[in-house]
Amino acid sequence: MTSFEQLWADLAAIGKDPSSGGYHRGGWTPTEREATGWFLDQCASRGLSVESDGIGNLVAWWEPSAQTEGTPGVVTGSHLDSVIDGGAFDGPLGVVSALSAVDRLRAEGFVPSVPIGVGAFVEEEGSRFGMPCLGSRIATGVLTPEKALALQDRSGVTLYDALARVEADPDRVGPSSLLARMGTFVELHVEQGRALTAPVGVASSIWPHGRFRFTFTGEANHAGTTLMEDRHDPMLTYAMTALAANKQARLAGARATFGRLSVEPNGTNAVPSQVTAWLDARAATAEVLESLLAAITRQATERAERDGTTVEMVPESVSPIVDFQPGLRDRLSAVLDGAPVLPTGAGHDAGVFSDAGIPTAMLFVRNPTGISHSPAEHAEMDDCLAGVEALATVLKELSR
Amino acid sequence: MTSFEQLWADLAAIGKDPSSGGYHRGGWTPTEREATGWFLDQCASRGLSVESDGIGNLVAWWEPSAQTEGTPGVVTGSHLDSVIDGGAFDGPLGVVSALSAVDRLRAEGFVPSVPIGVGAFVEEEGSRFGMPCLGSRIATGVLTPEKALALQDRSGVTLYDALARVEADPDRVGPSSLLARMGTFVELHVEQGRALTAPVGVASSIWPHGRFRFTFTGEANHAGTTLMEDRHDPMLTYAMTALAANKQARLAGARATFGRLSVEPNGTNAVPSQVTAWLDARAATAEVLESLLAAITRQATERAERDGTTVEMVPESVSPIVDFQPGLRDRLSAVLDGAPVLPTGAGHDAGVFSDAGIPTAMLFVRNPTGISHSPAEHAEMDDCLAGVEALATVLKELSR
Repeated sequence: MTSFEQLWADLAAIGKDPSSGGYHRGGWTPTEREATGWFLDQCASRGLSVESDGIGNLVAWWEPSAQTEGTPGVVTGSHLDSVIDGGAFDGPLGVVSALSAVDRLRAEGFVPSVPIGVGAFVEEEGSRFGMPCLGSRIATGVLTPEKALALQDRSGVTLYDALARVEADPDRVGPSSLLARMGTFVELHVEQGRALTAPVGVASSIWPHGRFRFTFTGEANHAGTTLMEDRHDPMLTYAMTALAANKQARLAGARATFGRLSVEPNGTNAVPSQVTAWLDARAATAEVLESLLAAITRQATERAERDGTTVEMVPESVSPIVDFQPGLRDRLSAVLDGAPVLPTGAGHDAGVFSDAGIPTAMLFVRNPTGISHSPAEHAEMDDCLAGVEALATVLKELSR
Repeated sequence: MTSFEQLWADLAAIGKDPSSGGYHRGGWTPTEREATGWFLDQCASRGLSVESDGIGNLVAWWEPSAQTEGTPGVVTGSHLDSVIDGGAFDGPLGVVSALSAVDRLRAEGFVPSVPIGVGAFVEEEGSRFGMPCLGSRIATGVLTPEKALALQDRSGVTLYDALARVEADPDRVGPSSLLARMGTFVELHVEQGRALTAPVGVASSIWPHGRFRFTFTGEANHAGTTLMEDRHDPMLTYAMTALAANKQARLAGARATFGRLSVEPNGTNAVPSQVTAWLDARAATAEVLESLLAAITRQATERAERDGTTVEMVPESVSPIVDFQPGLRDRLSAVLDGAPVLPTGAGHDAGVFSDAGIPTAMLFVRNPTGISHSPAEHAEMDDCLAGVEALATVLKELSR
């Protein structure tokens, strides 16, 4: 068994739902803490020195030379948290591949000229506090500690309280000293569509994307006695909007998804008073994303007028396009024997670090079905091992 | 202040949400228990003797004569539980009016020739365990104790455990001895549509109605990277079904409502794997209800084929039409000076008792807006007082 296979098997047991086979590792939950503890154990057993910041992002340093100790280096890694009932690969593949690539370089006797760091960044999925890339956004300062600490999970627990409960110090949260040592950042990630047909590819860009909260408000009423024509049912306005979003995204070659809903009062025999629905929308350019959103909002508003309901739309987070540094991207593709270069519709910490001015690149490992954010998410072991080899090659290239 | 107004003000404070103004009195919750405690106090202060059954239905007897003590009599009353965030009137109006009508008859010096009972029946709305008329269905034996005790609330608490937690004995649950003394049952209730234009009316029938659980199953996936055409999104199948239900109900002059939903995994950036939606459907005849349901299910199935999802429909409870005894109905309308006679789309314990062969009638109090199952549910005080007067008249008629 390779180092990768052993590490993968160890981590795969943590936070797995035995019935669905999916993962539940929301930020600062017991399963996510267990995965983080496993990571720290792995770093300790390798003699890597771990640095952390206030929100809990971690970088474990391999510093083979006293001359370069504490200087900026090449950081690789990803995240250990998951979406709700997510797959095994999204995040953990990048962390395990980073540890394995370092193992491989050390076994070869390679001595890098700069330190190499293995990173694990917190709450990348935003599945607990609703804000994707929470850890990296705080680290780079695009999300202020005040806004971040006031975020609430679905039970009304604030990030402030969640940190205090795991004995972290919320008052330390803020822009991170870890960034000063990130000379270059490379994130390896499972591909999340079917666009990559080679085992390993290099990212060109991340589509602009955002989360938009739609609140449909009507009038609660009795489901049995209220005439259909007397109703102001926000469920109908929502239903029409969900179908419109799908249609408009198809027309625009973009993506639009209503995957999260909250209904009030959510009783079988009551016409709802309110439906809250979260739209995830992404497109290749900011212009297409804007016009997609405008089309969906217009259709929602028109239907609301017919239903006698109201609709309000609030952007919760919007990320502009990320174009990874072309020179770095092309250098990696070349050193990987012309690995294909492709964009992605998924957001990543790498995008946040790139926006903060850190030279950043991403490697993708092939996803045979394209399924992601699901228990069925998968990558073949041979492709994962090719990913480790590619990452080791890239780390050598960037640290020689 | 009348007896009614005082009682009404006392009860109105219990279980009211200060922000919405709506009521939260699910079966065996602290607020519903508080309302029940209030009812028992009122019975005690009037010297009424309370009988209860295993599930917790209550009848408080006014027995003015030793000769008739313990014999069958006329029972009136309703329920104290509410839908989630429901109105003040649905249920409590019938209980408070019953106490007030008895107060009025006693103040007049009226001596009935048979006992008069004031009833409060549990979990009529089914808002906690999903089964409307739970108390009366168990009392009459149409719902077996085995099936009832295994019902679960949304937190997975069984009815068995809920009873044990309030120190009731689940092993006593079953057909009720209370029924042997229900010679006649009269339930006063707020009207729940806009069909009643006089202050008080008499029910002719209850529409056949049911709750049907639709499970739409697809495939969880990443909301950003999965091509629209690669998805199997059950939210779309659901959305189309919700619109179809509305349209079909309009065409049929019936009612169809999707007011309760559950989405898996319910994450913003994941195409859902499953949407469960509860349809409340009602129509004037069983034939119309059946064809309504068939039309909705057919459209759901057709859309599922296009979406690459599946749909399964399970009836959770179906109630056939209730025709209240015509002789009793006409006698009450006559004694109330020709009060209007009208059907209702709402289910009631009165329907369950009628089905069990107990001569049963209902009185309705006008609802100026037709809004029900909502904090905005309302009846004018003058109409409520007219309801008490009508109920006192009816009790006299049936017990003289």
